[in-house]
Amino acid sequence: MDFHSIDFITIADYLGTFAFAISGIRLASAKHFDWFGAYVVGIVTAVGGGTVRDVLLNVTPFWMEQPSYLIISGLALLFVIVFRKQTIRLNTPFFIFDTIGLGLFVVVGVVKTIDYGFPMWVAIVMGTITGSFGGMIRDILINEEPLIFRKDIYASACVFGGIAFQICVWVNLPPGLSQLIAALIIIITRLIAVKYHISVPVLKGEESENTFER
Amino acid sequence: MDFHSIDFITIADYLGTFAFAISGIRLASAKHFDWFGAYVVGIVTAVGGGTVRDVLLNVTPFWMEQPSYLIISGLALLFVIVFRKQTIRLNTPFFIFDTIGLGLFVVVGVVKTIDYGFPMWVAIVMGTITGSFGGMIRDILINEEPLIFRKDIYASACVFGGIAFQICVWVNLPPGLSQLIAALIIIITRLIAVKYHISVPVLKGEESENTFER
Amino acid sequence: MDFHSIDFITIADYLGTFAFAISGIRLASAKHFDWFGAYVVGIVTAVGGGTVRDVLLNVTPFWMEQPSYLIISGLALLFVIVFRKQTIRLNTPFFIFDTIGLGLFVVVGVVKTIDYGFPMWVAIVMGTITGSFGGMIRDILINEEPLIFRKDIYASACVFGGIAFQICVWVNLPPGLSQLIAALIIIITRLIAVKYHISVPVLKGEESENTFER
Repeated sequence: MDFHSIDFITIADYLGTFAFAISGIRLASAKHFDWFGAYVVGIVTAVGGGTVRDVLLNVTPFWMEQPSYLIISGLALLFVIVFRKQTIRLNTPFFIFDTIGLGLFVVVGVVKTIDYGFPMWVAIVMGTITGSFGGMIRDILINEEPLIFRKDIYASACVFGGIAFQICVWVNLPPGLSQLIAALIIIITRLIAVKYHISVPVLKGEESENTFER
Repeated sequence: MDFHSIDFITIADYLGTFAFAISGIRLASAKHFDWFGAYVVGIVTAVGGGTVRDVLLNVTPFWMEQPSYLIISGLALLFVIVFRKQTIRLNTPFFIFDTIGLGLFVVVGVVKTIDYGFPMWVAIVMGTITGSFGGMIRDILINEEPLIFRKDIYASACVFGGIAFQICVWVNLPPGLSQLIAALIIIITRLIAVKYHISVPVLKGEESENTFER
Repeated sequence: MDFHSIDFITIADYLGTFAFAISGIRLASAKHFDWFGAYVVGIVTAVGGGTVRDVLLNVTPFWMEQPSYLIISGLALLFVIVFRKQTIRLNTPFFIFDTIGLGLFVVVGVVKTIDYGFPMWVAIVMGTITGSFGGMIRDILINEEPLIFRKDIYASACVFGGIAFQICVWVNLPPGLSQLIAALIIIITRLIAVKYHISVPVLKGEESENTFER
């Protein structure tokens, strides 16, 4: 990573991890998981996307190299246990942190994939996986249809960010600036989508479920 | 791969990918996923089995090496969006493509596993995973019980094909012919199973759900 | 592994595999999966945790190196088919085997992770994954919320065992004894938890589901 300041990135990474973990823990609590189960769902939400990316890239998952991510997820669990009643009022800051985290995670995924020598289209896919598969696995664990496929341009914003990064690289912007622009495009896309309730169109199904079955 | 013609294999691979993606996209549309979500389910159905195989073999997933599979899945999405009303009438060709794809995917999985030095029993397992895990992950994403475990000898046909390939190799048939026979056995087994509604017997459960719980 | 006798470990490994597979097959049968589907669920329950561990460690999954695990899962399927009516009365021995298997699997996961040079906290996570993710994937396949997150200190017992192992190593106990103590702590924790219905506290959710959604 190559932003203006390493501190800014680290803070964004930790805030994003915290917000992702909170979202997993809160959904797990709505399903009456026990503390440990909620903790696992929180971790998986926070690190699941990057883990799938690293498994596909055939490298050691990033969270196995330093314990911060498990510790931050633990703090998120503690936070939900202690401030249970107040958390609803904190929806806006959580949402902001989550969106900042999303922007950062996608960019990290894109950059890491390029560093391993893959072409840009693989990097865009990996950035999208980094940003969105944690939430997808979370929804599988709590036995719900993945929300990211039905709401708020969530996953699509990741693709926009990846494409923006590619364009920045094509026009020879420096790496740090390209990353910042890509992250900002993801963050702004999502803020606008949520504010104005913009969604990707729903794919209309055949009325009958009588599809060719496999 | 070593069939009579590389063109035939490529066509079968692309038709199979298209048909697998169509099946994922149609089921996602029945669940009101958005276009992007349906696209992801289509991709996962088409490449999920081979991806699990490649992760277990500890090699880079095949679809990361050339963009055809994502492009074909995109064409499948476009097809469902544009020809929504007509798709029901196309059930038979989709089914034929899907079955050809299944035969090919299993054989590709078997051959790739042997190429990496694993014994034949691992190759049969990997062929079955290649053919059937895409549909399994699809059903997990749309929050349904996996259909492949309850219908039409789907996964079992993969095992038959793998065993047929092993027998062909034992009797010293040339590789290309062995692969063709294995693929045909999978295709014919499935066609017969669907036509005559042959299924693997259902495992009768205890009446009470009061099983030993973990 | 380094217990007093290789035979004891092998027997515990096979009994544990058998009991894990039985639990998957019985739950699949309650969902009317066919024989093949039940077999797949049985295998996944038995080897899923160790497979996730090995994928994260970036090594070839253990069950691809010898066919015993697939054979034992096949015997478990045969057992459930033949002795369907009697299996309910065998809940206690199944539970004992399952708990012995759990203790062993966690210790195997911890030791293997240390052997690959990871620090102890990664080993504890990997031990827990080895012991509990098979059951988690089983519940995803049969489309239920994972039971391990809501019952009987199951996953938490794995963590206790991992921590116990770390303490044993810190006080310089020999490896074999450390492993035995860790396994026993897991087994005893689980026996006590089930006997006295001790659970990890449930995380209380906000009343409204109106959480910040992602």
